[in-house]
Amino acid sequence: MNDFFQKDIISIRDLGKENLESIFSATEKIIDLESNQRREIARGKTLGYLFFEPSTRTRLSFQSAMALIGGTSLGIADVSSSSVQKGESLSDTVKVMSSYTDVLVLRHTLDGSSRFAAEISQKPIINGGSGTEEHPTQAIQDLFTIKREKKNIDGLKIGIVGDLKYGRTVYSLLYGLGNYNVEVHLISPEALRIRSDSAYDIKKQLSYTESTNLDDYIDDLDVLYVTRIQKERFPDEEEYTKVKGSYVIGPDMLKKMKDDAIILHPLPRIDEISPDIDDAKQAKYFEQAEYGKYTRAALLGLILNENGF
Amino acid sequence: MNDFFQKDIISIRDLGKENLESIFSATEKIIDLESNQRREIARGKTLGYLFFEPSTRTRLSFQSAMALIGGTSLGIADVSSSSVQKGESLSDTVKVMSSYTDVLVLRHTLDGSSRFAAEISQKPIINGGSGTEEHPTQAIQDLFTIKREKKNIDGLKIGIVGDLKYGRTVYSLLYGLGNYNVEVHLISPEALRIRSDSAYDIKKQLSYTESTNLDDYIDDLDVLYVTRIQKERFPDEEEYTKVKGSYVIGPDMLKKMKDDAIILHPLPRIDEISPDIDDAKQAKYFEQAEYGKYTRAALLGLILNENGF
Amino acid sequence: MNDFFQKDIISIRDLGKENLESIFSATEKIIDLESNQRREIARGKTLGYLFFEPSTRTRLSFQSAMALIGGTSLGIADVSSSSVQKGESLSDTVKVMSSYTDVLVLRHTLDGSSRFAAEISQKPIINGGSGTEEHPTQAIQDLFTIKREKKNIDGLKIGIVGDLKYGRTVYSLLYGLGNYNVEVHLISPEALRIRSDSAYDIKKQLSYTESTNLDDYIDDLDVLYVTRIQKERFPDEEEYTKVKGSYVIGPDMLKKMKDDAIILHPLPRIDEISPDIDDAKQAKYFEQAEYGKYTRAALLGLILNENGF
Repeated sequence: MNDFFQKDIISIRDLGKENLESIFSATEKIIDLESNQRREIARGKTLGYLFFEPSTRTRLSFQSAMALIGGTSLGIADVSSSSVQKGESLSDTVKVMSSYTDVLVLRHTLDGSSRFAAEISQKPIINGGSGTEEHPTQAIQDLFTIKREKKNIDGLKIGIVGDLKYGRTVYSLLYGLGNYNVEVHLISPEALRIRSDSAYDIKKQLSYTESTNLDDYIDDLDVLYVTRIQKERFPDEEEYTKVKGSYVIGPDMLKKMKDDAIILHPLPRIDEISPDIDDAKQAKYFEQAEYGKYTRAALLGLILNENGF
Repeated sequence: MNDFFQKDIISIRDLGKENLESIFSATEKIIDLESNQRREIARGKTLGYLFFEPSTRTRLSFQSAMALIGGTSLGIADVSSSSVQKGESLSDTVKVMSSYTDVLVLRHTLDGSSRFAAEISQKPIINGGSGTEEHPTQAIQDLFTIKREKKNIDGLKIGIVGDLKYGRTVYSLLYGLGNYNVEVHLISPEALRIRSDSAYDIKKQLSYTESTNLDDYIDDLDVLYVTRIQKERFPDEEEYTKVKGSYVIGPDMLKKMKDDAIILHPLPRIDEISPDIDDAKQAKYFEQAEYGKYTRAALLGLILNENGF
Repeated sequence: MNDFFQKDIISIRDLGKENLESIFSATEKIIDLESNQRREIARGKTLGYLFFEPSTRTRLSFQSAMALIGGTSLGIADVSSSSVQKGESLSDTVKVMSSYTDVLVLRHTLDGSSRFAAEISQKPIINGGSGTEEHPTQAIQDLFTIKREKKNIDGLKIGIVGDLKYGRTVYSLLYGLGNYNVEVHLISPEALRIRSDSAYDIKKQLSYTESTNLDDYIDDLDVLYVTRIQKERFPDEEEYTKVKGSYVIGPDMLKKMKDDAIILHPLPRIDEISPDIDDAKQAKYFEQAEYGKYTRAALLGLILNENGF
């Protein structure tokens, strides 16, 4: 029996290195399989999606993953604007949806919502993003992309740049990287540094430096992970405009990078990466988006099949 | 040829006991079939949904039913907020949708809308809830749940409690119960008694008592069917608060019930059933929701296959 | 290899008569195929839809076409109201969506959007309506309907009536008709005549007359193509009311038509065709809608299969 069969995926922190590596192997297998064989993996199975906070991209990534392995998707793209919201409890909504489907992906604004849902659901729950820190399938996608593009995660120098305070992607990635022997540099404006409570937990597994200056590290990085800096996060626009420029990755920044470095971004991007470098061989963010389809398909395949696929 | 092949399902009143029993048999068959065999039932068929009044739950129940038997669903979850609403007639919308699909489920605020649609549609129409009284697939689901859980419907003592005036679910259920030899007790606040015009029709087939006091019947019931009491239905909030409490099913009420009684609810519930009794063996409302998937799959299977399945 | 394999469908102007005829043949084949065989055509393939301007009808036509040939659809029914719209570029949205799917249908308010998308997409793009003039799959559907119902397009007398200024359907149809030897009469209120810049292009391929008076032509037409006249297009309501009546097709107008003429309309209609003539043998607009499912299925089948189907 595979370790993921009928299991919930709530936090990247529940997954050890061995777990991650078995998802990566399953993902490579999905990529290599013939289309006919892939479609047997979830034949006759149904994924339910329940998005209390809309995220078109995550939903479509799951739907395309499910279609790839021959299954069907149905659900609610935006619970808050749906007729479900008549005062019904999360618990009841999850119970009913889980009786309609074989596996559920839940996205919610509240920390702990997915774990709560997993406790009451008859069917496995996948956390599709919740609260401030958890987005395990994004972290799996990110780690897989690094492994696939750089062959090994151990030994890499990884810079994470942008808004490190509000992006749940970053926290999940850092927890995931805690399973590997990597050198991590966090680069952000002072106001958007990683939260100290989370930093405390992350440091148990991973040491990292913090800096406001990307230039100090750029030429030495193997992986540059860029996130969006949102205007709304800044008390005044002047401050925003001042810092923004220093974290934009464009042709000049690219020149400073190692030839075999890779640039990642969870997307959507606004202007933190210039489209001028989209064709550079280091730019791997669209590949990263596509790998998300394969990692999710692999995860769904493992959850739905007792003996894997 | 099975009786439902290419037939419309407009009102529970169109279905006799024999019809209902053949849907129940087909439902039991769906439950027992292997997943592979189920998926042959609607292979290559498409269900269209056309919801002029959004109902996420009914839509998802139909979609999951269709997926279970191997078919596809597509449609409009909320016609009023879609681009279809440019003054086009219901008739035109139905004609076009029926040319895209093999069977249509229609939900509409107006009485008679489904029957009208059935007249002009090339394909079978299922009423997914219309006007004040008709929700035939909900009634089928409710009756199947009673039969499945109590083995027989004939001979049962059935209490229906809550808002009996505005809930179309209740009317459809009562018309359905008219086919059986049952003792029915309607329990509601004075202001939410069953409408007298409908009562007139129902009484032709079914005798029932009316009361405001659940305590008079609770210890004798085999089935307790609970519906929501909505605040909006009361002229003043004081009146609402006063009556609300007397119809809440919680641990104290449960203690008065027979050991083998069952509690049903069409869901969503707000607070008319306390979550404290969800684990009681009498609580069958989540099973009821799940059976809705199977009864709808059975009905679709019968409509789509000349010789049944 | 078939001419459409992995090709974009951006403008009807890119398609010659031979191209159109091969789509028509493929459509006839789709209609004639057994359901089992049809479903092999797109088995395991996924259509992505990306509608920046909502069009429920076009989306459902594509979804039903994809279901007919065994494929899956997923996408965004209204990008502007989705969470995608966080300042992301069209280019990024298209790149990500194309990594999730095998073929993309795009609808956009801007001229040139589809051609732009095609340049950056890894997967074929179908223009599902863009800007003021392009709606190639509607034109294919219209031309197929004419051919199917009249056996030949060459030699026909075709009247196009209504709003010829703002309807992109009309422009695409005229460009398509440019491949055939037909006599075309454009009939519209003065204010809604075909735009002169487009007229210039169209006249290179096609000669037509322009008139405000339908009665001059009605008894001689083989095909009457009716479009909606929208109130909003008129500076004052009085003007609108005045012209509206002269272009309504009802029983009186029908009597003037040839016995074997056909009446088409891209739908939705409001009151420019009276429902009183829906059952007349000349009324072919609902057939036209249904053919849209088959022409789109044929087109998708050709795009997705190297050697056709």
